[in-house]
Amino acid sequence: MEQIESLQRLAEQFGRLQGVGKKSAMRMAFATLSLDADAAEEFASAIIEAKQKIHECPICANLTDRELCFVCEDETRDRSLICVVEDVKAVMSIEKVREFRGVYHVLGGTISPINGITPDKIRIPELVVRVGEENVREVIVATNPTPDGEVTAMYIARALKPLGVKVTRLAYGVPVGSDLEYADEVTLGRALEGRQDV
Amino acid sequence: MEQIESLQRLAEQFGRLQGVGKKSAMRMAFATLSLDADAAEEFASAIIEAKQKIHECPICANLTDRELCFVCEDETRDRSLICVVEDVKAVMSIEKVREFRGVYHVLGGTISPINGITPDKIRIPELVVRVGEENVREVIVATNPTPDGEVTAMYIARALKPLGVKVTRLAYGVPVGSDLEYADEVTLGRALEGRQDV
Repeated sequence: MEQIESLQRLAEQFGRLQGVGKKSAMRMAFATLSLDADAAEEFASAIIEAKQKIHECPICANLTDRELCFVCEDETRDRSLICVVEDVKAVMSIEKVREFRGVYHVLGGTISPINGITPDKIRIPELVVRVGEENVREVIVATNPTPDGEVTAMYIARALKPLGVKVTRLAYGVPVGSDLEYADEVTLGRALEGRQDV
Repeated sequence: MEQIESLQRLAEQFGRLQGVGKKSAMRMAFATLSLDADAAEEFASAIIEAKQKIHECPICANLTDRELCFVCEDETRDRSLICVVEDVKAVMSIEKVREFRGVYHVLGGTISPINGITPDKIRIPELVVRVGEENVREVIVATNPTPDGEVTAMYIARALKPLGVKVTRLAYGVPVGSDLEYADEVTLGRALEGRQDV
């Protein structure tokens, strides 16, 4: 409703968020109006606060609102095991598993020559320096199983080779709980290749 | 990521909006972090401003950030023709058609005995007063074609009968551009009933 300027402006703001279309933006603007006044204030200040406080961890580029991220500041974490991920969402996913006790290195993207993203535009040089300076035993490359993620993993493996560190990659295979009928051929092929003794 | 408090807080705020689930809320919190600082400020102030300025039009309960809503303040609108709708979104939908030149009456819901919403809990008494006081020629009841919308339309027709005003309802039928194959039987039945000469 173009005629209600402040509603329109609010919808535009929601629409600026990545992945939010015009219709959802208007729906959320309406939903915001249904909040009580205090809740709306809280919402607004949460935005300001998050923007002001959250920054990249100087060690791994994970997000944090303290000095270091919660992984890097945790002294029980194994600093000789680095898991390389594309973005902070991947850190979240892996942390949910509660199995990995090493630290992270967030690349902030993947190599993508078609989009002009060369290895130096993501945090690969920082990774090489980090592995060179610290006593690292193993680097697990957990980039996404996409073509760009693959290329990035290969590049990292090669870049780290001179440093003599072990570089591994997440296992490919059929997802647990899924049905083979629905697995695509590439995944199934990889699952066969990577078959394990039982 | 529970460990980044301000991010978590922001995601919770998004999650409070009706229709926004936990995953979308986190996705939008991340998207908010990707805004530049000015855009985030604008976002926050758009929320505050919309909440402060937007209120119901005293005549029809449409939303507005001025004294009257854009329909009621428009002197070219036909005040003798009132379109009764459930909510402000319906006003938006009908305005998009650019065909209706009358004014609105926003009920703010439908009668729903099961949820304890009796006719006096939505703006039906106000409608009766409005029709009684003003020189109204026709009331178009444009509640949704749902059971509750139907009941509400019936109730309104009966409540307005003593005032001698003409009460009409939106036509039912097959949607334009659709395929009869996909029309449900009830809709098709209504379309047959309401068939028109060509």
